[in-house]
Amino acid sequence: MTMTLHDSDRLVAAATAAADVAGCVIRPFFRQGIGADDKDDRSPVTIADRTAERAIRAVLAERLPDHGVLGEEFGQERPGGRYCWVIDPVDGTRAFLTGRPTFGTLIALLEDGVPVLGVIDQPVTGERWIGVRGRPTRYESRWPGAIRTRPCPDIGQAELSCTAPEMIEGAPTPHWDALRRSAKRVSWGGDCYAYGLLALGQIDVVAECTMKIWDWAALVPVIEGAGGRVTDWSGRPLRADGDGTVLAVGDPTLLATASALLCEGRPTRS
Amino acid sequence: MTMTLHDSDRLVAAATAAADVAGCVIRPFFRQGIGADDKDDRSPVTIADRTAERAIRAVLAERLPDHGVLGEEFGQERPGGRYCWVIDPVDGTRAFLTGRPTFGTLIALLEDGVPVLGVIDQPVTGERWIGVRGRPTRYESRWPGAIRTRPCPDIGQAELSCTAPEMIEGAPTPHWDALRRSAKRVSWGGDCYAYGLLALGQIDVVAECTMKIWDWAALVPVIEGAGGRVTDWSGRPLRADGDGTVLAVGDPTLLATASALLCEGRPTRS
Repeated sequence: MTMTLHDSDRLVAAATAAADVAGCVIRPFFRQGIGADDKDDRSPVTIADRTAERAIRAVLAERLPDHGVLGEEFGQERPGGRYCWVIDPVDGTRAFLTGRPTFGTLIALLEDGVPVLGVIDQPVTGERWIGVRGRPTRYESRWPGAIRTRPCPDIGQAELSCTAPEMIEGAPTPHWDALRRSAKRVSWGGDCYAYGLLALGQIDVVAECTMKIWDWAALVPVIEGAGGRVTDWSGRPLRADGDGTVLAVGDPTLLATASALLCEGRPTRS
Repeated sequence: MTMTLHDSDRLVAAATAAADVAGCVIRPFFRQGIGADDKDDRSPVTIADRTAERAIRAVLAERLPDHGVLGEEFGQERPGGRYCWVIDPVDGTRAFLTGRPTFGTLIALLEDGVPVLGVIDQPVTGERWIGVRGRPTRYESRWPGAIRTRPCPDIGQAELSCTAPEMIEGAPTPHWDALRRSAKRVSWGGDCYAYGLLALGQIDVVAECTMKIWDWAALVPVIEGAGGRVTDWSGRPLRADGDGTVLAVGDPTLLATASALLCEGRPTRS
């Protein structure tokens, strides 16, 4: 990362200011019975998603007028530059719509296509994860929790998490269930919040698919700055034009086993 | 219900005092990396479950020494009487173990086998639902939310929720997926918290199975006092010796359709 420390502080300040504003937009809609529209991919979107994304764009445009922005709801602005913000105003719209406090606002900065800064913000619980490439991730909360993924070299001891079984129907390989059978336990739901829990050492593996860049860009610096790894199911760095698979592990030594299970249905490569 | 108003206030005070104590026991264990043991049914149990159940039993025994108690971890005390408390100290141990704030303490009172009082307590978020048969349910929280299930006469508009797909593998009929396909959306995870969200008008249908009496007894007064219904998949009242299925609907007019989908795979009885 070529950002200086000074740059990085200024960029984190912009990201957290944008997250603050998004939270102020989103909270008054929480559990207020607002409706949802179905998008082309049948995923729901609400007035909270749209208004929060506009507010985030306004904050970023005021502070960093030369940077690009790519958002889930309103597409790309100022493409082609070195820096691009990638935002998902409400990651986990289903959770938001059902009153669960486990959705999140995701704000990431890409430098030459690589995520160098990520914020996961939960505006109801007041939890916030701030990741900057090359630095330890920070966790701000009134609740217990300390940033550090936990050691878990044995897949048989791993807590696995996934947002929804419907996601797995869109997987490029049919082996998710091999990972599930190898893990100690599985729990469901969570969206970005599950990745935040992985950074807190509460979950060992998250494996999902049909993920867009705004779903994963912010997770990368948060998880890597907590000691974990996040890749595609093959173990390769995530890319905008990838296959939509995401594999996050708290213990980096789990990556090869989890990836082999997902890609080949067994714990080592043939 | 033959309890007088005076009795009922005294019993609610005992239940909420027990929930307070359970919360004080559980909170210090939240996200502290405590281990879990596997029970005979392979479900996990922790020191938080065991200590909280002992604390709840201590409070109830001091206040209501003649009442029976049935708990998930330590079995039955003083069986055969008219009143029996039914408790699950940590409903959603998987959620608790992964740091999710969506587990709950469940405390119910049965009168002649019928749930007449139920408390759902979330000790991290500070949310509490208190249901008493024949009275409006109360919701105590710092967060938004008002007790009242929402109208949803059309299954095609319903938000469906279920804790985990593994649960459905133990279902007595193979038609859960017919319900899922008929509903507008499905979201996963939640344990007792999802039923609390149904009482807040955020979710329309929860359909689960492999549920023990301590998993459902507290839900009945909470949901019925919010305007909803909770039965087995056949639409019959829940019983200790039932088949473990639970169907909760916010709008009572949804019950027949949801039950027919679960039992026969189609929206009306043949």
